[in-house]
Amino acid sequence: MASPEKVGLSGRAKQMPASPIRKLIPFAEEAKKKGIKIFHLNIGQPDIPTPKEFMQAVRKYDKSVLAYGNSQGDASLLEELVRYYKRYNIDLQTRDIVVTTGGSEAIIFAMICVADVDDEIIVFEPFYTNYNGFAKMADVRLIPVTTYAETGFHLPGKEEIEEKITPRTKAILVSSPGNPTGVVYTGEELEMLASICKERNLFLLSDEVYREFVYDGEHVSAFELDDMEDRVIVLDSISKRFSACGARIGCIASKNQMVMSTALRMGQARLCSPSIEQQAATEALRLPPGYFEKIKEEYRKRRDLVFEELMQIPGVVCIKPQGAFYIMAKLPVEDVEDFARWMLTDFNLENKTTMVAPGPGFYATIGKGKDEARIAYVLNLDDLREAMRVLKAGIQVYNQPEAAN
Amino acid sequence: MASPEKVGLSGRAKQMPASPIRKLIPFAEEAKKKGIKIFHLNIGQPDIPTPKEFMQAVRKYDKSVLAYGNSQGDASLLEELVRYYKRYNIDLQTRDIVVTTGGSEAIIFAMICVADVDDEIIVFEPFYTNYNGFAKMADVRLIPVTTYAETGFHLPGKEEIEEKITPRTKAILVSSPGNPTGVVYTGEELEMLASICKERNLFLLSDEVYREFVYDGEHVSAFELDDMEDRVIVLDSISKRFSACGARIGCIASKNQMVMSTALRMGQARLCSPSIEQQAATEALRLPPGYFEKIKEEYRKRRDLVFEELMQIPGVVCIKPQGAFYIMAKLPVEDVEDFARWMLTDFNLENKTTMVAPGPGFYATIGKGKDEARIAYVLNLDDLREAMRVLKAGIQVYNQPEAAN
Repeated sequence: MASPEKVGLSGRAKQMPASPIRKLIPFAEEAKKKGIKIFHLNIGQPDIPTPKEFMQAVRKYDKSVLAYGNSQGDASLLEELVRYYKRYNIDLQTRDIVVTTGGSEAIIFAMICVADVDDEIIVFEPFYTNYNGFAKMADVRLIPVTTYAETGFHLPGKEEIEEKITPRTKAILVSSPGNPTGVVYTGEELEMLASICKERNLFLLSDEVYREFVYDGEHVSAFELDDMEDRVIVLDSISKRFSACGARIGCIASKNQMVMSTALRMGQARLCSPSIEQQAATEALRLPPGYFEKIKEEYRKRRDLVFEELMQIPGVVCIKPQGAFYIMAKLPVEDVEDFARWMLTDFNLENKTTMVAPGPGFYATIGKGKDEARIAYVLNLDDLREAMRVLKAGIQVYNQPEAAN
Repeated sequence: MASPEKVGLSGRAKQMPASPIRKLIPFAEEAKKKGIKIFHLNIGQPDIPTPKEFMQAVRKYDKSVLAYGNSQGDASLLEELVRYYKRYNIDLQTRDIVVTTGGSEAIIFAMICVADVDDEIIVFEPFYTNYNGFAKMADVRLIPVTTYAETGFHLPGKEEIEEKITPRTKAILVSSPGNPTGVVYTGEELEMLASICKERNLFLLSDEVYREFVYDGEHVSAFELDDMEDRVIVLDSISKRFSACGARIGCIASKNQMVMSTALRMGQARLCSPSIEQQAATEALRLPPGYFEKIKEEYRKRRDLVFEELMQIPGVVCIKPQGAFYIMAKLPVEDVEDFARWMLTDFNLENKTTMVAPGPGFYATIGKGKDEARIAYVLNLDDLREAMRVLKAGIQVYNQPEAAN
């Protein structure tokens, strides 16, 4: 037998993107070994405690066999989700919802539902970086429309979006409140997208996992758009809402029964989402709306603090974002990836440094975001204040090369 | 504006298979409403209690924030998996493993890893029906090689398999012990597959979730095959092993670091598997090997009982399976889908009936399995005995049309 060939991976496997947010982790670990305290503004992991009602439900799980659950989701969770959406005047029935393993699964289910291989989905960059990974797994193409720090990352005009539509375009994917930008689209912006979807026969995939985190104005759900029942697919998750990122509970929701039937069949293939967390999520959804008010106030203070501190740094460009818990800002550095790494390898202020997420990871267009960083305000106010002081000092030193190192 | 077109789903969405096992559920629910007790031999949901060590670990989860875990899996779970495999003389390092959300995710990760759209993966039918759903999501083609009840569903000769290989073939996917057949492949059979993989430059995807459930002979892991380090990808799960199907904890394992790097990047996209269950799975994996001995003895008795009872039914064809907890048998009926439905809608013995999984759902070739059913022996011995008595009576009545209904 001839010496066997080396076995080759698929094309999409080779192109699967590494998480750009996680690329800096080895440098962070080195810094920690040197005894440097790092303020992690780089990941969207909230520090807010998971509701005790959730944790109590976990501890109360008392079945002797941890069996497969219903593929669509536990009946009580589905009913509670219906009630949850009703608070926002969104009228869904249980048949309009499939519980998913995190918002992640909802996104990949939706992509597969609307697009075949090499079909196109329009996204607004900067966007949630993991959309890239899901698109590669599903082998669909994300077509970016760029938005800008100078305009608070709001949508461009209709023509600019329509220019990107080809016969292969199947959907527009939006996130409002947005990660990484914190932008909250207005009703007019969403209506503009709806009119494009209707005129060009597209789906609207709406990632609304930060629904409650709106500090100015009101959140508009894609479900509120007129004549869009067949086109809207909402992607949702309890991860941020209840600070339960490790639970892996989300949902996909649509009034389009063909979409829901497909989502259910994909759900049947993978059997079910985690049973214990479904029971716990049901309890969390029963919390009164006041639960969010307190958390929103906390995040609002953090946003105001981070924004004000950023405004104190000469050369920073950003408009105060209205939602989520991120600020995407232009920093006065040429290459933010180099700067972010340098903050870990070469800089500290009183043995402290700050870690940010470099902008390019949130863009599909090569070269975009080189001077931008995402700052997640997921630390308490004191730590945030200190983190921003360290960041400001770091920028100053970085821009005086003779002083650096 | 013209009246908008109806928005269309993707081709793969339209082709997404419904779970054939779940098709009969509405009829079962009707029967239950009529007060009929149903013996569920149709699903692979074990009745064995989940280990109390697992449940205790769930209750002991005491972090205040249920945060994202490591995308590769919790460090302690990865280390425990390394120790678990060592018991079977499988030498892995933590870098060779990515924890997945159930075996389901491991399967889809592996398919995407080795195959692009329209690439082919060879499977031996009858096979685990959800392979179809994953293949459709990944948009790869499953190419079936048929195996037969008469030969205990063991593999055909090498030529018969090689005939199915085309330039688009990327892998062979096997499950041993097998679902739905209970077949356990011999070392020689696996070596034959290995030689094909080496000669034709293919991956070997090996679903080993029933590793412990072998009643005659020994389980051979694909990891034990010579010169196959770069080609073997093992798909695994704690669902059956620890009767923890609702936990959604599995793993993908390979010595091929390109495969593992891809799996990790897919893992990063979906962030992490459920955190609480990872902690609990770690505890379950620490159970002494004796844990499995007791359970294996219980299943062995059940297999023997079901097999003996089947042999009492005239016209049944099957060879005693060596593993898992399924028997795939030819029943003396023309159309097993009709028979299985009839058992729910038209038959009962002393207000009891038996539900089986019809064969065709486990075949890719249309028309195959029409007279076969999968029987899952996941009930206690008394219930199984009664279920088989009811099944036997049902077959008798079904085959005497004048008596039925």
